[in-house]
Amino acid sequence: MGVGSVTLVGGGPGDPDLLTIAAARALASADVVLYDRLAPRDALAELAPHAELIDVGKRPGHHPIGQGEIERLLVEHALRGAAVVRLKGGDPFVFGRGSEEADACHRAGVPVRVIPGVTSAIAVPAAAGIPVTHREVSRLFTVVSGHAPLERSELEHLAGLGGTIVVLMGVSNLPSISAGLLRAGMAPETPVAVVERGYSAGQRTTFAELAQIREAADRAGVRSPAVIVIGEVVHRARLGDAGAEAVLVDAVSRPGGGA
Amino acid sequence: MGVGSVTLVGGGPGDPDLLTIAAARALASADVVLYDRLAPRDALAELAPHAELIDVGKRPGHHPIGQGEIERLLVEHALRGAAVVRLKGGDPFVFGRGSEEADACHRAGVPVRVIPGVTSAIAVPAAAGIPVTHREVSRLFTVVSGHAPLERSELEHLAGLGGTIVVLMGVSNLPSISAGLLRAGMAPETPVAVVERGYSAGQRTTFAELAQIREAADRAGVRSPAVIVIGEVVHRARLGDAGAEAVLVDAVSRPGGGA
Repeated sequence: MGVGSVTLVGGGPGDPDLLTIAAARALASADVVLYDRLAPRDALAELAPHAELIDVGKRPGHHPIGQGEIERLLVEHALRGAAVVRLKGGDPFVFGRGSEEADACHRAGVPVRVIPGVTSAIAVPAAAGIPVTHREVSRLFTVVSGHAPLERSELEHLAGLGGTIVVLMGVSNLPSISAGLLRAGMAPETPVAVVERGYSAGQRTTFAELAQIREAADRAGVRSPAVIVIGEVVHRARLGDAGAEAVLVDAVSRPGGGA
Repeated sequence: MGVGSVTLVGGGPGDPDLLTIAAARALASADVVLYDRLAPRDALAELAPHAELIDVGKRPGHHPIGQGEIERLLVEHALRGAAVVRLKGGDPFVFGRGSEEADACHRAGVPVRVIPGVTSAIAVPAAAGIPVTHREVSRLFTVVSGHAPLERSELEHLAGLGGTIVVLMGVSNLPSISAGLLRAGMAPETPVAVVERGYSAGQRTTFAELAQIREAADRAGVRSPAVIVIGEVVHRARLGDAGAEAVLVDAVSRPGGGA
């Protein structure tokens, strides 16, 4: 048996219907699937009926399988001939360490391809009725990992740039991010939305002004996974009131004041 | 016959296999499809076999159907009972005026939902082997419309922010964008890639350093549609040499020097 392959697949924001056709096809013919915490896991048995399913999901605070071990598993299975799918939440190249995994395959001589996915950075705000761009409101948006605290110069340039800021993995650093943006001169009344568990039955959006978002998130008991959206586009969410842009799943509540 | 509906559908970066399952389903049951220049048009007859297909694509310099007229058509067809799909390239909320179209439907009392798509801003760089984020190289990226010239303060904050800059619709403003970033202090040797016609047989990537990209793009005769990527992640494209991350379509040439 020759060398197999690794396909890095973007699993989208959680709803299996937001997988691409190419992703579904790769899963259907996979021998092995290594999947993340935020990948659409519930549908996997159906989507990848012939595959060995390996959960490599990392929960905050837990590290069941380290990154080096994931890369070792990908290469090992591929070298013994398997068609391996590495299924990630969102897009593989947006904070997914997909680029590192591609490097590891490349070094080992394993053919690797990438199937991009629907990124949570855009789709989860959309599920709450928030467009990341809107003509004459925002013609740019920045997507940033909130996993580690942001540096002062990053906060200053983000505050000065305008447009929309989308923070992924930022719940635990929300206090320092909001305080840092305020210190950098961002208007205290800038609207903010925190969208938890996008595309699940438990989707919930908390709205507040930047100066109050820390308190509002505390009061609501906001937890990860959540996408934080900062900027004037958050005001557009009002249009979602009639269920308009609240997509596929429509369970948006508004505990915060503000916008 | 009651009121129909409008579904704003992200058509992804051009390859029909990068449509989502939800998008394919919406097309399959559509009565009317209004589609853009950058939507996956060739596959439409097959994907939407029962639908009236209306081309509302705007080519640069031509304006076959204006935005107001598109919104009028969406509402008119929906009000006479049709299941209308508005198929856009990429994601409907990334410079797609999807938010305005949702507003128009909302004002007319037409139910509207949004199916997010794979955005060209992330997927087209990926097709050229470029990840928009890479651990310890870039933990943020900004997506900006290059349709109109950028303001000086935008260029300054983009230059200072670090991370990756992705410019959509920026070919004609590439000279002013690159000059502006250099004036704002961005390093002249910052690597830049211009990826034309992503996911088509004519995909081509031009690489150069920031100080030379204008000239390299001129020499190569770069034309829209193209995605411009600026930042250290462009160096990762080298790994694509063996066809690794050059996804689905693998026709990448490297006329520029630089990276």
